[in-house]
Amino acid sequence: METASEPPPPLPQAPDALVARLRAGDRRALARAITWIEDQDPRGAAVAAAMFRESGTAHLTGFTGPPGVGKSSLLGAMVGDLRARSDAQVGIVSVDPSSPFTHGAVLGDRIRLAEHFLDPGVFIRSMGTRGHLGGVAEATLQVALLLDASGRQEVFIETVGVGQSEIEVASLADTVVLVLMPGSGDAVQALKAGIMEVPDVIVINKADHPATRTLRQQVRSVLTLGGPREWLPPIVETQATTGEGVGRLWEVIGEHRDFLAAEGRLEARRRDSIEREIFTLASSRAQRFLEQQVAEDPQLGELLAAVHHRTLDPVSCVERLF
Amino acid sequence: METASEPPPPLPQAPDALVARLRAGDRRALARAITWIEDQDPRGAAVAAAMFRESGTAHLTGFTGPPGVGKSSLLGAMVGDLRARSDAQVGIVSVDPSSPFTHGAVLGDRIRLAEHFLDPGVFIRSMGTRGHLGGVAEATLQVALLLDASGRQEVFIETVGVGQSEIEVASLADTVVLVLMPGSGDAVQALKAGIMEVPDVIVINKADHPATRTLRQQVRSVLTLGGPREWLPPIVETQATTGEGVGRLWEVIGEHRDFLAAEGRLEARRRDSIEREIFTLASSRAQRFLEQQVAEDPQLGELLAAVHHRTLDPVSCVERLF
Repeated sequence: METASEPPPPLPQAPDALVARLRAGDRRALARAITWIEDQDPRGAAVAAAMFRESGTAHLTGFTGPPGVGKSSLLGAMVGDLRARSDAQVGIVSVDPSSPFTHGAVLGDRIRLAEHFLDPGVFIRSMGTRGHLGGVAEATLQVALLLDASGRQEVFIETVGVGQSEIEVASLADTVVLVLMPGSGDAVQALKAGIMEVPDVIVINKADHPATRTLRQQVRSVLTLGGPREWLPPIVETQATTGEGVGRLWEVIGEHRDFLAAEGRLEARRRDSIEREIFTLASSRAQRFLEQQVAEDPQLGELLAAVHHRTLDPVSCVERLF
Repeated sequence: METASEPPPPLPQAPDALVARLRAGDRRALARAITWIEDQDPRGAAVAAAMFRESGTAHLTGFTGPPGVGKSSLLGAMVGDLRARSDAQVGIVSVDPSSPFTHGAVLGDRIRLAEHFLDPGVFIRSMGTRGHLGGVAEATLQVALLLDASGRQEVFIETVGVGQSEIEVASLADTVVLVLMPGSGDAVQALKAGIMEVPDVIVINKADHPATRTLRQQVRSVLTLGGPREWLPPIVETQATTGEGVGRLWEVIGEHRDFLAAEGRLEARRRDSIEREIFTLASSRAQRFLEQQVAEDPQLGELLAAVHHRTLDPVSCVERLF
């Protein structure tokens, strides 16, 4: 005699049926929908479009900062803390850099998040590095909205880097958290020079390092540069490895949410960020369309060749491409 | 009796006439043409188009790195060194970040370059922060090509930042120099994680700092990560303030040029970079066009409002916009 555990029911192939399973809280259906989105399968867009109406209730938190500062470990500690004290469902979408050079460092980060892979209340997805950067941004937006629509109350978007484009993906979030560590000199300089926009919350992770005090002073002096602001970004010291400061970080994020909730600020911010996001998506779509056209249409290829032979200047070439 | 110095002849208002003056080596004509380009005056595009055929002889060197590492001072020292030993004409186009936050740090950099403003063999132009980032990139490309076409043998494109988009502007150069200083931990991590492409030459400026050796070891270990490469980026230590290492930096840039000159590498690289540049320009053009359309066309504005009210999802909105 043998006891066999029931095999899970097969996932539907039709978007409508998958949406029904998503609404019923099926994690496997969610994973399947995200795979469709990543693969640019039209069914992914159909699911995202159908679910979009139900989004808008989650808190979206952007988690960004230079590589190596311990963003993923900190996110792991935050989620652990939250899950220990509440039933809140968590969704994390993590965007890896899209470069053929190496992914060693980033792979390590993913492993640090792995302990939560077993918690059914936490859904983690790393966006692949396949394809176009614009495509990754588009997929990230869709996945974040899908995590929201499928009942996650806390959605995190993790991005990496020091620069305008890196913070941009995170900026569709309601609250943007910039994670630094002692030694993040370039990031502080980037804030100072206005290359990186000022986030809502600044974290100094690995705060047991003796240079923490110096970094805190540098960050504070940068924040006073721009004159008085409605919301002065708080600086929180954490140690992801021990959990030190994680409770305080949640508090501070909560304070920012209260700030946004007042005077219609959240509405205004979401309106701005969705508008910016749409223009960004449109521009990367236009670029992909053009690249495809040039690859297929020999006449357009000749335009590029003319620029290379300096018989046509680049800007005139762009005008003719349109 | 009085001796009056002849007032300079007025500059022509017609693009054709200005092109003639440019060909005669008139610096004021060059400045005027660049102003037209920055102002998006159609005459700027006309001048750039007319002169483009004559470009392609200058060496284009990209100078990039985190803010505060002393890029401008180092560029100043390099130009001083070059001008002391040759008659090479130099053009510098410097791109400042486009942010309302603060420009304090960058202003200081410009002052450090100022000693060369009096040298008629050196033409320096800082691109304004006005308008769209895509617009700045487009203008920078045109100005770099104009400096080339108007007889500068050495053209530098200076950009600032740590990230993919920052290095992109510099990547239309033949040789990309990344400038770091001890404390550039984020930049090293960005290289390590593959967020920032590997440049052709790496400089450690402010190399009198005791942490130089550590930084050099970190950079070297990052460079070996990707396996063997055709060109292993040399690491040069400099002190812009004393001129230490500047001669060596010129040597190393020369070696990279020799490397490119062999086996048609320069041709291939320029073909790739101009193609990439054209797609980037096209995409930012498309975005500006769309933003304008949405501002003018109430129907398109309603599409955005529908997304905000969650009756239309962002990706479907983008599809309808097209």
